[in-house]
Amino acid sequence: MDRRSQILTIAGHLFSQRGYHATSMRELARHLNLQGGSLYAHIQSKEELLLEVVRQAAERFQKVLEELPSGDPVTRMKALVKGHLRVIAEELPRATVFFHEWKHLSPPLLEEAKALRRRYEEGVQEVIREGVEKGVFQVENPRLATLFVLSALNWTYQWYRPDGPLSLEELSEQYAKLVLRALGVREGGEDGEA
Amino acid sequence: MDRRSQILTIAGHLFSQRGYHATSMRELARHLNLQGGSLYAHIQSKEELLLEVVRQAAERFQKVLEELPSGDPVTRMKALVKGHLRVIAEELPRATVFFHEWKHLSPPLLEEAKALRRRYEEGVQEVIREGVEKGVFQVENPRLATLFVLSALNWTYQWYRPDGPLSLEELSEQYAKLVLRALGVREGGEDGEA
Repeated sequence: MDRRSQILTIAGHLFSQRGYHATSMRELARHLNLQGGSLYAHIQSKEELLLEVVRQAAERFQKVLEELPSGDPVTRMKALVKGHLRVIAEELPRATVFFHEWKHLSPPLLEEAKALRRRYEEGVQEVIREGVEKGVFQVENPRLATLFVLSALNWTYQWYRPDGPLSLEELSEQYAKLVLRALGVREGGEDGEA
Repeated sequence: MDRRSQILTIAGHLFSQRGYHATSMRELARHLNLQGGSLYAHIQSKEELLLEVVRQAAERFQKVLEELPSGDPVTRMKALVKGHLRVIAEELPRATVFFHEWKHLSPPLLEEAKALRRRYEEGVQEVIREGVEKGVFQVENPRLATLFVLSALNWTYQWYRPDGPLSLEELSEQYAKLVLRALGVREGGEDGEA
Protein backbone atom coordinates (compact mmCIF):
# COMPACT_ATOMS: atom_id res chain seq x y z
CA MET A 1 0.00 0.00 0.00
CA ASP A 2 1.45 3.38 -0.86
CA ARG A 3 1.74 6.08 1.74
CA ARG A 4 -1.35 7.95 0.64
CA SER A 5 -3.53 4.81 0.72
CA GLN A 6 -2.17 4.05 4.16
CA ILE A 7 -3.06 7.51 5.38
CA LEU A 8 -6.58 7.18 4.01
CA THR A 9 -7.07 3.77 5.61
CA ILE A 10 -5.94 4.93 9.05
CA ALA A 11 -7.94 8.15 8.71
CA GLY A 12 -11.05 6.10 7.91
CA HIS A 13 -10.50 4.01 11.02
CA LEU A 14 -10.00 6.99 13.31
CA PHE A 15 -12.87 9.05 11.89
CA SER A 16 -15.25 6.12 12.17
CA GLN A 17 -14.19 5.15 15.68
CA ARG A 18 -13.70 8.46 17.46
CA GLY A 19 -15.53 10.82 15.13
CA TYR A 20 -14.11 13.35 12.70
CA HIS A 21 -13.88 16.29 15.07
CA ALA A 22 -12.25 14.22 17.77
CA THR A 23 -9.48 13.00 15.45
CA SER A 24 -6.50 15.32 15.30
CA MET A 25 -3.85 15.39 12.59
CA ARG A 26 -1.31 14.83 15.35
CA GLU A 27 -3.04 11.61 16.35
CA LEU A 28 -3.25 10.50 12.75
CA ALA A 29 0.48 11.15 12.31
CA ARG A 30 1.21 9.18 15.46
CA HIS A 31 -0.72 6.15 14.14
CA LEU A 32 1.32 6.36 10.96
CA ASN A 33 4.64 6.85 12.73
CA LEU A 34 5.05 10.14 10.93
CA GLN A 35 6.08 13.58 12.08
CA GLY A 36 2.96 15.78 12.18
CA GLY A 37 4.34 18.11 9.56
CA SER A 38 5.26 15.43 7.04
CA LEU A 39 1.60 14.41 6.73
CA TYR A 40 1.12 17.58 4.75
CA ALA A 41 3.43 16.31 2.02
CA HIS A 42 0.65 13.84 1.22
CA ILE A 43 -2.56 15.67 1.99
CA GLN A 44 -3.81 19.23 2.12
CA SER A 45 -6.05 19.18 5.16
CA LYS A 46 -8.03 16.97 7.50
CA GLU A 47 -11.18 17.93 5.65
CA GLU A 48 -9.77 16.92 2.29
CA LEU A 49 -8.91 13.59 3.89
CA LEU A 50 -12.50 13.16 5.06
CA LEU A 51 -13.82 13.87 1.57
CA GLU A 52 -11.33 11.43 0.06
CA VAL A 53 -12.55 8.63 2.36
CA VAL A 54 -16.13 9.48 1.35
CA ARG A 55 -15.07 9.29 -2.31
CA GLN A 56 -13.52 5.86 -1.82
CA ALA A 57 -16.65 4.52 -0.16
CA ALA A 58 -18.86 6.08 -2.83
CA GLU A 59 -16.81 4.36 -5.51
CA ARG A 60 -17.26 0.96 -3.89
CA PHE A 61 -21.03 1.43 -3.58
CA GLN A 62 -21.29 2.78 -7.11
CA LYS A 63 -19.52 -0.29 -8.41
CA VAL A 64 -22.28 -2.45 -6.95
CA LEU A 65 -24.77 -0.62 -9.15
CA GLU A 66 -22.57 -0.83 -12.21
CA GLU A 67 -22.12 -4.56 -11.81
CA LEU A 68 -25.77 -5.46 -11.32
CA PRO A 69 -26.88 -8.23 -13.66
CA SER A 70 -29.27 -7.12 -16.32
CA GLY A 71 -32.58 -8.87 -16.35
CA ASP A 72 -35.48 -9.12 -14.03
CA PRO A 73 -35.98 -6.69 -11.14
CA VAL A 74 -35.98 -9.41 -8.47
CA THR A 75 -32.56 -10.70 -9.50
CA ARG A 76 -31.23 -7.18 -9.71
CA MET A 77 -32.55 -6.24 -6.28
CA LYS A 78 -31.11 -9.40 -4.72
CA ALA A 79 -27.71 -8.57 -6.19
CA LEU A 80 -28.03 -5.01 -4.94
CA VAL A 81 -28.79 -6.11 -1.37
CA LYS A 82 -25.91 -8.55 -1.42
CA GLY A 83 -23.46 -6.11 -2.96
CA HIS A 84 -24.42 -3.27 -0.62
CA LEU A 85 -24.06 -5.46 2.47
CA ARG A 86 -20.75 -6.77 1.19
CA VAL A 87 -19.33 -3.27 0.91
CA ILE A 88 -20.39 -2.57 4.49
CA ALA A 89 -18.86 -5.82 5.72
CA GLU A 90 -15.60 -5.35 3.83
CA GLU A 91 -15.21 -1.61 4.26
CA LEU A 92 -16.73 -0.94 7.64
CA PRO A 93 -14.72 2.19 8.55
CA ARG A 94 -15.14 3.81 5.15
CA ALA A 95 -18.82 2.90 5.03
CA THR A 96 -19.29 4.42 8.49
CA VAL A 97 -17.68 7.63 7.27
CA PHE A 98 -19.89 7.57 4.16
CA PHE A 99 -22.98 7.09 6.31
CA HIS A 100 -22.18 9.31 9.22
CA GLU A 101 -19.07 11.47 9.35
CA TRP A 102 -19.54 13.15 5.92
CA LYS A 103 -21.85 15.62 7.67
CA HIS A 104 -18.88 17.35 9.24
CA LEU A 105 -17.63 18.57 5.87
CA SER A 106 -18.23 22.21 5.05
CA PRO A 107 -19.00 23.74 1.64
CA PRO A 108 -17.87 23.28 -1.08
CA LEU A 109 -16.58 19.83 -0.06
CA LEU A 110 -19.90 19.09 1.61
CA GLU A 111 -21.66 19.54 -1.73
CA GLU A 112 -19.45 16.94 -3.37
CA ALA A 113 -20.17 14.42 -0.61
CA LYS A 114 -23.90 15.09 -0.89
CA ALA A 115 -23.75 14.65 -4.65
CA LEU A 116 -21.97 11.31 -4.30
CA ARG A 117 -24.53 10.08 -1.81
CA ARG A 118 -27.38 11.33 -3.97
CA ARG A 119 -25.98 9.64 -7.06
CA TYR A 120 -26.00 6.30 -5.30
CA GLU A 121 -29.47 6.81 -3.86
CA GLU A 122 -30.78 7.70 -7.29
CA GLY A 123 -29.20 4.58 -8.76
CA VAL A 124 -30.99 2.44 -6.17
CA GLN A 125 -34.21 4.32 -6.80
CA GLU A 126 -33.83 3.60 -10.51
CA VAL A 127 -33.68 -0.14 -9.83
CA ILE A 128 -36.87 0.14 -7.81
CA ARG A 129 -38.57 2.32 -10.40
CA GLU A 130 -37.76 -0.18 -13.16
CA GLY A 131 -39.28 -2.94 -11.07
CA VAL A 132 -42.42 -0.88 -10.62
CA GLU A 133 -42.61 -0.16 -14.34
CA LYS A 134 -42.32 -3.84 -15.17
CA GLY A 135 -45.13 -4.56 -12.74
CA VAL A 136 -42.92 -6.65 -10.45
CA PHE A 137 -42.71 -4.24 -7.52
CA GLN A 138 -45.82 -2.61 -6.10
CA VAL A 139 -44.71 0.66 -4.59
CA GLU A 140 -46.68 3.88 -4.10
CA ASN A 141 -43.75 6.17 -3.53
CA PRO A 142 -40.46 4.92 -5.03
CA ARG A 143 -38.49 7.67 -3.31
CA LEU A 144 -39.72 6.67 0.13
CA ALA A 145 -39.33 2.97 -0.65
CA THR A 146 -35.71 3.69 -1.62
CA LEU A 147 -35.06 5.42 1.67
CA PHE A 148 -36.72 2.56 3.51
CA VAL A 149 -34.61 -0.08 1.78
CA LEU A 150 -31.35 1.83 2.14
CA SER A 151 -32.14 2.49 5.79
CA ALA A 152 -32.66 -1.17 6.51
CA LEU A 153 -29.40 -2.03 4.73
CA ASN A 154 -27.25 0.82 6.01
CA TRP A 155 -27.95 0.25 9.65
CA THR A 156 -26.16 -3.11 9.48
CA TYR A 157 -22.94 -1.12 9.88
CA GLN A 158 -24.01 -0.71 13.50
CA TRP A 159 -24.28 -4.37 14.39
CA TYR A 160 -23.11 -6.73 11.65
CA ARG A 161 -19.67 -8.26 11.99
CA PRO A 162 -18.48 -10.73 9.36
CA ASP A 163 -16.85 -12.85 12.08
CA GLY A 164 -20.16 -13.11 13.99
CA PRO A 165 -22.60 -16.04 13.91
CA LEU A 166 -24.37 -14.91 10.74
CA SER A 167 -22.55 -15.30 7.43
CA LEU A 168 -22.76 -12.49 4.91
CA GLU A 169 -24.43 -14.95 2.56
CA GLU A 170 -27.20 -15.77 5.05
CA LEU A 171 -27.70 -12.16 6.06
CA SER A 172 -27.97 -11.09 2.42
CA GLU A 173 -30.43 -13.81 1.59
CA GLN A 174 -32.74 -13.06 4.51
CA TYR A 175 -32.52 -9.31 4.04
CA ALA A 176 -33.21 -9.64 0.33
CA LYS A 177 -36.34 -11.59 1.17
CA LEU A 178 -37.54 -8.89 3.57
CA VAL A 179 -36.71 -6.14 1.07
CA LEU A 180 -38.54 -7.88 -1.79
CA ARG A 181 -41.58 -8.42 0.35
CA ALA A 182 -41.58 -4.77 1.39
CA LEU A 183 -41.47 -3.91 -2.31
CA GLY A 184 -44.63 -5.95 -2.80
CA VAL A 185 -43.15 -9.01 -4.49
CA ARG A 186 -45.37 -11.99 -3.78
CA GLU A 187 -43.78 -14.97 -2.13
CA GLY A 188 -42.93 -17.60 -4.72
CA GLY A 189 -42.69 -14.89 -7.33
CA GLU A 190 -39.18 -14.16 -6.20
CA ASP A 191 -37.37 -16.04 -8.87
CA GLY A 192 -38.46 -13.68 -11.51
CA GLU A 193 -41.56 -15.36 -12.79
CA ALA A 194 -42.93 -11.88 -13.44
CA MET B 1 -36.71 23.83 32.84
CA ASP B 2 -34.44 23.28 35.81
CA ARG B 3 -30.70 23.64 35.48
CA ARG B 4 -30.01 19.92 35.22
CA SER B 5 -32.60 19.43 32.44
CA GLN B 6 -31.08 22.38 30.61
CA ILE B 7 -27.63 20.86 30.85
CA LEU B 8 -28.91 17.55 29.51
CA THR B 9 -30.71 19.21 26.62
CA ILE B 10 -27.68 21.22 25.54
CA ALA B 11 -25.40 18.21 26.02
CA GLY B 12 -27.68 16.16 23.78
CA HIS B 13 -27.47 18.82 21.08
CA LEU B 14 -23.70 19.09 21.21
CA PHE B 15 -23.04 15.35 21.40
CA SER B 16 -25.34 14.71 18.46
CA GLN B 17 -23.98 17.53 16.32
CA ARG B 18 -20.25 17.42 16.94
CA GLY B 19 -19.85 14.01 18.47
CA TYR B 20 -19.18 13.05 22.07
CA HIS B 21 -15.39 13.17 21.97
CA ALA B 22 -15.36 16.51 20.21
CA THR B 23 -17.58 18.14 22.84
CA SER B 24 -15.65 19.57 25.77
CA MET B 25 -17.06 20.45 29.16
CA ARG B 26 -15.73 23.93 28.59
CA GLU B 27 -17.82 24.28 25.44
CA LEU B 28 -20.86 22.90 27.21
CA ALA B 29 -20.39 25.43 30.01
CA ARG B 30 -20.08 28.21 27.45
CA HIS B 31 -23.38 27.26 25.81
CA LEU B 32 -25.00 27.37 29.23
CA ASN B 33 -23.37 30.64 30.25
CA LEU B 34 -21.80 28.88 33.19
CA GLN B 35 -18.30 28.87 34.59
CA GLY B 36 -16.65 25.58 33.68
CA GLY B 37 -16.27 24.58 37.30
CA SER B 38 -19.87 25.22 38.30
CA LEU B 39 -21.06 22.54 35.87
CA TYR B 40 -19.72 20.02 38.34
CA ALA B 41 -22.24 21.14 40.93
CA HIS B 42 -24.84 19.51 38.68
CA ILE B 43 -23.09 16.57 37.11
CA GLN B 44 -20.21 14.26 37.89
CA SER B 45 -18.57 13.86 34.52
CA LYS B 46 -19.05 14.17 30.78
CA GLU B 47 -19.53 10.43 30.57
CA GLU B 48 -22.28 10.44 33.19
CA LEU B 49 -23.96 13.13 31.10
CA LEU B 50 -23.78 10.95 28.02
CA LEU B 51 -25.36 8.04 29.87
CA GLU B 52 -28.08 10.30 31.25
CA VAL B 53 -29.02 11.44 27.73
CA VAL B 54 -29.12 7.79 26.64
CA ARG B 55 -31.40 7.05 29.62
CA GLN B 56 -33.78 9.86 28.68
CA ALA B 57 -34.03 8.61 25.10
CA ALA B 58 -34.48 5.02 26.26
CA GLU B 59 -37.34 6.12 28.49
CA ARG B 60 -39.13 7.81 25.59
CA PHE B 61 -38.76 4.75 23.36
CA GLN B 62 -39.78 2.40 26.16
CA LYS B 63 -42.94 4.43 26.71
CA VAL B 64 -43.93 3.72 23.09
CA LEU B 65 -43.90 0.00 23.90
CA GLU B 66 -45.77 0.48 27.17
CA GLU B 67 -48.52 2.45 25.48
CA LEU B 68 -49.12 0.10 22.56
CA PRO B 69 -52.79 -0.77 22.20
CA SER B 70 -53.62 -4.34 23.06
CA GLY B 71 -55.21 -6.34 20.34
CA ASP B 72 -54.19 -7.52 16.94
CA PRO B 73 -50.54 -7.52 15.82
CA VAL B 74 -51.14 -5.26 12.82
CA THR B 75 -52.62 -2.49 14.94
CA ARG B 76 -49.83 -2.89 17.48
CA MET B 77 -47.13 -2.75 14.83
CA LYS B 78 -48.65 0.34 13.22
CA ALA B 79 -48.69 2.07 16.60
CA LEU B 80 -45.10 1.01 17.19
CA VAL B 81 -43.91 2.43 13.87
CA LYS B 82 -45.73 5.68 14.50
CA GLY B 83 -44.57 6.00 18.08
CA HIS B 84 -40.96 5.19 17.25
CA LEU B 85 -40.86 7.72 14.42
CA ARG B 86 -42.51 10.32 16.64
CA VAL B 87 -39.77 9.97 19.26
CA ILE B 88 -37.13 10.47 16.56
CA ALA B 89 -38.95 13.51 15.18
CA GLU B 90 -39.52 15.09 18.59
CA GLU B 91 -36.26 14.14 20.22
CA LEU B 92 -33.78 14.18 17.39
CA PRO B 93 -30.63 15.02 19.40
CA ARG B 94 -31.38 12.50 22.15
CA ALA B 95 -32.37 9.85 19.62
CA THR B 96 -29.11 10.45 17.74
CA VAL B 97 -27.18 9.93 20.95
CA PHE B 98 -29.19 6.78 21.68
CA PHE B 99 -28.46 5.46 18.19
CA HIS B 100 -24.90 6.55 17.75
CA GLU B 101 -22.95 8.27 20.50
CA TRP B 102 -23.64 5.70 23.25
CA LYS B 103 -20.74 3.67 21.83
CA HIS B 104 -18.28 6.10 23.34
CA LEU B 105 -19.23 5.10 26.88
CA SER B 106 -16.83 2.85 28.71
CA PRO B 107 -17.65 0.09 31.22
CA PRO B 108 -19.59 -0.05 33.49
CA LEU B 109 -21.69 2.78 32.01
CA LEU B 110 -21.45 1.15 28.58
CA GLU B 111 -23.18 -1.95 29.96
CA GLU B 112 -26.12 0.09 31.19
CA ALA B 113 -26.54 1.74 27.79
CA LYS B 114 -26.36 -1.64 26.06
CA ALA B 115 -28.94 -3.06 28.45
CA LEU B 116 -31.33 -0.16 27.76
CA ARG B 117 -30.96 -0.62 24.02
CA ARG B 118 -31.38 -4.37 24.33
CA ARG B 119 -34.51 -3.99 26.46
CA TYR B 120 -36.14 -1.91 23.75
CA GLU B 121 -35.06 -4.24 20.96
CA GLU B 122 -36.45 -7.19 22.87
CA GLY B 123 -39.74 -5.38 23.36
CA VAL B 124 -40.00 -4.82 19.62
CA GLN B 125 -39.04 -8.43 18.97
CA GLU B 126 -41.80 -9.52 21.34
CA VAL B 127 -44.39 -7.62 19.29
CA ILE B 128 -43.14 -9.39 16.16
CA ARG B 129 -43.01 -12.77 17.88
CA GLU B 130 -46.62 -12.40 19.05
CA GLY B 131 -47.65 -11.60 15.50
CA VAL B 132 -45.92 -14.73 14.26
CA GLU B 133 -47.56 -16.84 16.97
CA LYS B 134 -50.98 -15.57 16.02
CA GLY B 135 -50.25 -16.43 12.40
CA VAL B 136 -50.47 -12.82 11.24
CA PHE B 137 -46.79 -12.25 10.53
CA GLN B 138 -44.80 -14.71 8.45
CA VAL B 139 -41.22 -14.44 9.60
CA GLU B 140 -38.46 -17.03 9.56
CA ASN B 141 -36.11 -15.31 11.96
CA PRO B 142 -37.83 -12.86 14.34
CA ARG B 143 -34.51 -11.56 15.64
CA LEU B 144 -33.34 -10.60 12.15
CA ALA B 145 -36.75 -9.22 11.24
CA THR B 146 -36.56 -7.03 14.36
CA LEU B 147 -33.18 -5.68 13.34
CA PHE B 148 -34.47 -5.06 9.82
CA VAL B 149 -37.50 -3.14 11.04
CA LEU B 150 -35.59 -1.11 13.61
CA SER B 151 -32.93 -0.34 11.00
CA ALA B 152 -35.48 1.00 8.56
CA LEU B 153 -37.04 3.13 11.29
CA ASN B 154 -33.88 4.34 13.02
CA TRP B 155 -32.21 5.64 9.91
CA THR B 156 -34.90 8.30 9.57
CA TYR B 157 -32.90 10.30 12.13
CA GLN B 158 -30.48 10.92 9.28
CA TRP B 159 -32.90 12.53 6.87
CA TYR B 160 -36.36 13.13 8.30
CA ARG B 161 -37.18 16.65 9.44
CA PRO B 162 -40.67 17.39 10.79
CA ASP B 163 -40.67 20.74 8.98
CA GLY B 164 -39.93 19.05 5.63
CA PRO B 165 -42.44 18.19 2.88
CA LEU B 166 -43.52 14.91 4.45
CA SER B 167 -45.70 15.02 7.56
CA LEU B 168 -44.96 12.60 10.37
CA GLU B 169 -48.42 11.16 9.83
CA GLU B 170 -47.75 10.37 6.14
CA LEU B 171 -44.28 9.03 6.83
CA SER B 172 -45.61 6.76 9.58
CA GLU B 173 -48.41 5.46 7.43
CA GLN B 174 -46.21 4.64 4.46
CA TYR B 175 -43.45 3.14 6.59
CA ALA B 176 -45.97 1.04 8.50
CA LYS B 177 -47.20 -0.34 5.21
CA LEU B 178 -43.67 -1.27 4.11
CA VAL B 179 -42.91 -2.81 7.51
CA LEU B 180 -46.09 -4.88 7.53
CA ARG B 181 -45.41 -6.15 4.06
CA ALA B 182 -41.87 -7.09 5.03
CA LEU B 183 -43.37 -9.02 7.94
CA GLY B 184 -45.45 -10.96 5.46
CA VAL B 185 -48.84 -9.37 6.07
CA ARG B 186 -50.94 -9.72 2.96
CA GLU B 187 -52.28 -6.54 1.48
CA GLY B 188 -55.86 -6.01 2.56
CA GLY B 189 -55.19 -8.08 5.65
CA GLU B 190 -53.75 -5.05 7.33
CA ASP B 191 -56.76 -4.10 9.34
CA GLY B 192 -56.43 -7.03 11.57
CA GLU B 193 -58.72 -9.53 9.88
CA ALA B 194 -56.54 -12.24 11.38
